[in-house]
Amino acid sequence: MTDSTQQIESYSAKLTRLQKAKKSLLCVGIDPEYDKLPKRFADDKDWLFKFCHVMIKSTMQYAVAYKFNFAFFEVMGSQGWETLQRLLEIVPKDCITIADAKRGDIGNSARQYAKAILEEMAFDAVTVNPYMGHDAVEPFLADPGKGVYCLCLTSNAGAKDLQYLLVDEQPLFKHVGALVQKWNAAKNCGIVVGATKPAHLKELRQQYPDMPFLIPGVGAQGGSLNQVLEIVNGSNALINASRSIIYASANDDFAQAAAHEAAMMQANMAKNF
Amino acid sequence: MTDSTQQIESYSAKLTRLQKAKKSLLCVGIDPEYDKLPKRFADDKDWLFKFCHVMIKSTMQYAVAYKFNFAFFEVMGSQGWETLQRLLEIVPKDCITIADAKRGDIGNSARQYAKAILEEMAFDAVTVNPYMGHDAVEPFLADPGKGVYCLCLTSNAGAKDLQYLLVDEQPLFKHVGALVQKWNAAKNCGIVVGATKPAHLKELRQQYPDMPFLIPGVGAQGGSLNQVLEIVNGSNALINASRSIIYASANDDFAQAAAHEAAMMQANMAKNF
Repeated sequence: MTDSTQQIESYSAKLTRLQKAKKSLLCVGIDPEYDKLPKRFADDKDWLFKFCHVMIKSTMQYAVAYKFNFAFFEVMGSQGWETLQRLLEIVPKDCITIADAKRGDIGNSARQYAKAILEEMAFDAVTVNPYMGHDAVEPFLADPGKGVYCLCLTSNAGAKDLQYLLVDEQPLFKHVGALVQKWNAAKNCGIVVGATKPAHLKELRQQYPDMPFLIPGVGAQGGSLNQVLEIVNGSNALINASRSIIYASANDDFAQAAAHEAAMMQANMAKNF
Repeated sequence: MTDSTQQIESYSAKLTRLQKAKKSLLCVGIDPEYDKLPKRFADDKDWLFKFCHVMIKSTMQYAVAYKFNFAFFEVMGSQGWETLQRLLEIVPKDCITIADAKRGDIGNSARQYAKAILEEMAFDAVTVNPYMGHDAVEPFLADPGKGVYCLCLTSNAGAKDLQYLLVDEQPLFKHVGALVQKWNAAKNCGIVVGATKPAHLKELRQQYPDMPFLIPGVGAQGGSLNQVLEIVNGSNALINASRSIIYASANDDFAQAAAHEAAMMQANMAKNF
């Protein structure tokens, strides 16, 4: 950072700075699943590390963030946990690391989750669940340099069960947006909004143009990259693609195929800078 | 189980059977925190296992369930994960094990979380977050013998931020109760309701008398055991106490003090059987 006052750079400021430098909004989602692996890894006991390693190395030129989906590491037990640590060391300094852990618990427990993810593992950002309210999110917000993305409007079918319920004639997810606006006083709190809901994404973006947005659902889940790019208008939003990049090919060209997908997305994004 | 038809015993049926046999609704919350430990463990590198081991052994006669708070294990990294596995082996067969993990993610990821917790680690039950709706919960419900507790009305101050918002003149948490009622077709889905909100706990219990309830907040958080016992009326509800039992004493009598607290609670509970 260039700030001479020794003030801590906010998460938002850091993200924007990296995005401008790389002309990229691309977040690569690391969702390593044995059944979907390129054949080459089928008999490799260290497949979890090696596959993710290749994916990071192949895309790091185009991505500005990596989102690690904790579900796919936890299912591997303590080995998964150790692999996550090894992978974090590979991610270059000009990329943000996001723990896609969707944690949410009372203050006492939330402090432990925040310590585990943002201090011990030293992720740059984390996804959290807003259902338990402010004190479940607050411990993650203590360091303005660390980003916290609250689930707002998710890309799945079940989103309708709670997120669309009307409160004062507005869907619940808009109330979450308003809460996060308050929680974003230190410029380090944002929202997760699925690319599969472009009309709502547009409304939310118009309402909160400076808030960090994390937008999954492009690619395998069906969201349109160009549509999202028109909406987010170039900064402080991350667009995540997971399966469409890391499983771009199951053959021996898997690394090139992933790089190609990432490069195509980044080239589209660069037009907005 | 005594069922001769080889049908799988539902989680609810199993829980009720164990509760009647032990005349107990007591769930001991395992929230191991280094700063609160009895002095004896201060220099012990294996304190996480040893402390939890003593707590389980001291209370297993009185408890019918153990709830492991994942935050306190995750903060220890892969060692925490391994310790969790070792501890599960100690819990006797007449006690339910609950993974207090509050997970919630889209179907693809939820399946991995469910596999990690209910298959690989083989917990009997898990806590989940309802914000993402049915497909985020469904993978946990596949085995009717495994219990799934959805956050409904939590014991913390932040509960007001979303859970009390009015939807069709009813607070949001009541809509969660109604959703869980639907998800409970196989008698394995219930709700988490804080003991600190007795009036709402009573309403929910009257509405769903047969649903599994997990009730934290008795003891350190201020909920009254007797008040909760009057409301839940003896079956299919678990009342959780964590800090008031496991930190009952910081001196060398910590095991006896924990046993005494658990025994007192169970004696109160036994009156309702």
